[in-house]
Amino acid sequence: MNKKYFTVGPTELSEGIAYNYANAVENNIFSFSHRSKEFEEIYADTVKSLKSLLNIPDDFYVFFLSSATECMERVVQNLVEKESFHFINGYFAERFLKISKHLGKNTAFIKSEYGTDFNWNDVSISDSTEMICVTHNETSTGTVLDAKKIYELKNKYPEKIMAVDIVTSVPYYQFDFNFIDAAFFSVQKGFGLPPGLGVMVCRKSLINKAKGLSDKGIVIGTYNNFLNLAANADKNQTTITPNIPAIYLLGKSCEAILNKGVDTMRNETEKKANLLYNFFDKHPNIKPFVEEKDLRSLTTIVLKTELDTNKIHTKLEYNDFVVSSGYGDFKENHIRIGNFPMHKFEDVSNLIYLFKKF
Amino acid sequence: MNKKYFTVGPTELSEGIAYNYANAVENNIFSFSHRSKEFEEIYADTVKSLKSLLNIPDDFYVFFLSSATECMERVVQNLVEKESFHFINGYFAERFLKISKHLGKNTAFIKSEYGTDFNWNDVSISDSTEMICVTHNETSTGTVLDAKKIYELKNKYPEKIMAVDIVTSVPYYQFDFNFIDAAFFSVQKGFGLPPGLGVMVCRKSLINKAKGLSDKGIVIGTYNNFLNLAANADKNQTTITPNIPAIYLLGKSCEAILNKGVDTMRNETEKKANLLYNFFDKHPNIKPFVEEKDLRSLTTIVLKTELDTNKIHTKLEYNDFVVSSGYGDFKENHIRIGNFPMHKFEDVSNLIYLFKKF
Repeated sequence: MNKKYFTVGPTELSEGIAYNYANAVENNIFSFSHRSKEFEEIYADTVKSLKSLLNIPDDFYVFFLSSATECMERVVQNLVEKESFHFINGYFAERFLKISKHLGKNTAFIKSEYGTDFNWNDVSISDSTEMICVTHNETSTGTVLDAKKIYELKNKYPEKIMAVDIVTSVPYYQFDFNFIDAAFFSVQKGFGLPPGLGVMVCRKSLINKAKGLSDKGIVIGTYNNFLNLAANADKNQTTITPNIPAIYLLGKSCEAILNKGVDTMRNETEKKANLLYNFFDKHPNIKPFVEEKDLRSLTTIVLKTELDTNKIHTKLEYNDFVVSSGYGDFKENHIRIGNFPMHKFEDVSNLIYLFKKF
Repeated sequence: MNKKYFTVGPTELSEGIAYNYANAVENNIFSFSHRSKEFEEIYADTVKSLKSLLNIPDDFYVFFLSSATECMERVVQNLVEKESFHFINGYFAERFLKISKHLGKNTAFIKSEYGTDFNWNDVSISDSTEMICVTHNETSTGTVLDAKKIYELKNKYPEKIMAVDIVTSVPYYQFDFNFIDAAFFSVQKGFGLPPGLGVMVCRKSLINKAKGLSDKGIVIGTYNNFLNLAANADKNQTTITPNIPAIYLLGKSCEAILNKGVDTMRNETEKKANLLYNFFDKHPNIKPFVEEKDLRSLTTIVLKTELDTNKIHTKLEYNDFVVSSGYGDFKENHIRIGNFPMHKFEDVSNLIYLFKKF
């Protein structure tokens, strides 16, 4: 059985995962103490490759957590005393809001009709807002925000923390971290790794805010509070015994993309996305959900249809192709296709060929 | 390079890890959605094997978290409103206490001189204590408690939640879960897996307590609160995309031990532990730290010495053997040896041979 996973994550694995894993087992890497020099080297190598690939500046920490959802919890817990503001354009943005609420914070938000843009002129963020939470690429709807909108927001509210969910954005979408203070992703999306690792990048100066909250007696978490995370990151260590295989494989995945060339990876992603959108724009029964072309994600292609999506999944799987269902209320009427660096052009062509039958 | 890791975790990997991993990659297991039937089967299989191996009753949930330390945080957050009581016999028991404190709970404790037993007659637990926290096998000191002491405590305080750290206890030590309400471990110890998974077992009826706290407006965490964890576990699912490789490999590891036979595994562990303790009891310069024989852990053998432990580590590593340093204040004067199911009798003999030179 070797199916092609065009899912939005977990998804198709990048090449060489089993080889790199076996090689690491052979070299005892997964037996290393997380307090050893050997592990510190792995940590440092992965951070270096990741920072190089995503243009993350030196004055940012890279923290290894367990999932993007943990990143949402920790970033609110550590950097929001009272109030966060949320841009809601899909179910993952909603999750970010809910987490802040569950942590007892006040929340405010602006919501778009899913699949369409925000009314940017209506954005009004109160003085008491400490953190602005934005989902750059909404995996549930296939909507992507122009990063410039985020940068303009940061320019307008420079004193507020700009926290960006980049879960399915990277490594294709590149960011200017002058305008972003904290961002997070998980590795089972664009990096094509097995799940089990969330990566949080955070401007180093923000650790002071976490300290301030802690000094006021506010609970900022325990082992994974930002003070602990930063103190350990300074030593190329983690707070606890982490998912060492995932940290190691992430480094290898970054290196592979850097070796191939970031521009090549980006060009290929665009070529595959264009092929998909052009095809579905002309499809009689299955159409892109996001109509406005500038809002269409190139990594997460969401389609709407009146056809029976269960039958579509069954037929695709019969031909060894797997795509994702719709999310939330869209479960029955949407289909989501992941378009990440590991997805091959010829497989996209074959997938399109199958969709011609519907 | 193929060293023997007699460390206390991360440690030597169980046999077949790379093979099982490659097989899973080949079969697309790490591309499965964590909401798919296929993943639910993996979840159910692992839970079934684990419950069978550790004699965990049906009325217990098995939650997959990211580390044993996360388990400490979540169990306090969800099951303690105001006060926990801690048995402190080493640094991991201290960590459990600190986590409860950081979460704003009141804490009380009894402390033993490390390496010796508690004065059980001095134990006095207040009526306001909701949870009793015990570290069964202290990885930092090599002290193990007689499980009967834990059962007697539970008999004396039946209304209090008995939460037991069994991180380096399992799978060798077996427990009677009639007297334990919550317990947790991580997979990079006795199961010989790469790190990145914490396993929490919890009596199902306790979910009501978490609900009660939540209803009172107490923060019980967000995505990984016990209500979410239980609702998902009921479907053989996790709250978030989990470390699927680790859940899969844990199932394989449990199956392998069950196939070999639990009694065989236990007999081998005892034989290896006896060999080590008998040797070091007679060693001129390196002695077991725990003097009282009934208190000596059979899985975590801690030694004390006046010799230069750095030189010992260097000489052992030169011969391709790795052991753990002491923990905390014992860093320079202790050596810790893991004795888990994957450690081979002949390798223990070879390790002992090397120690004859010191």
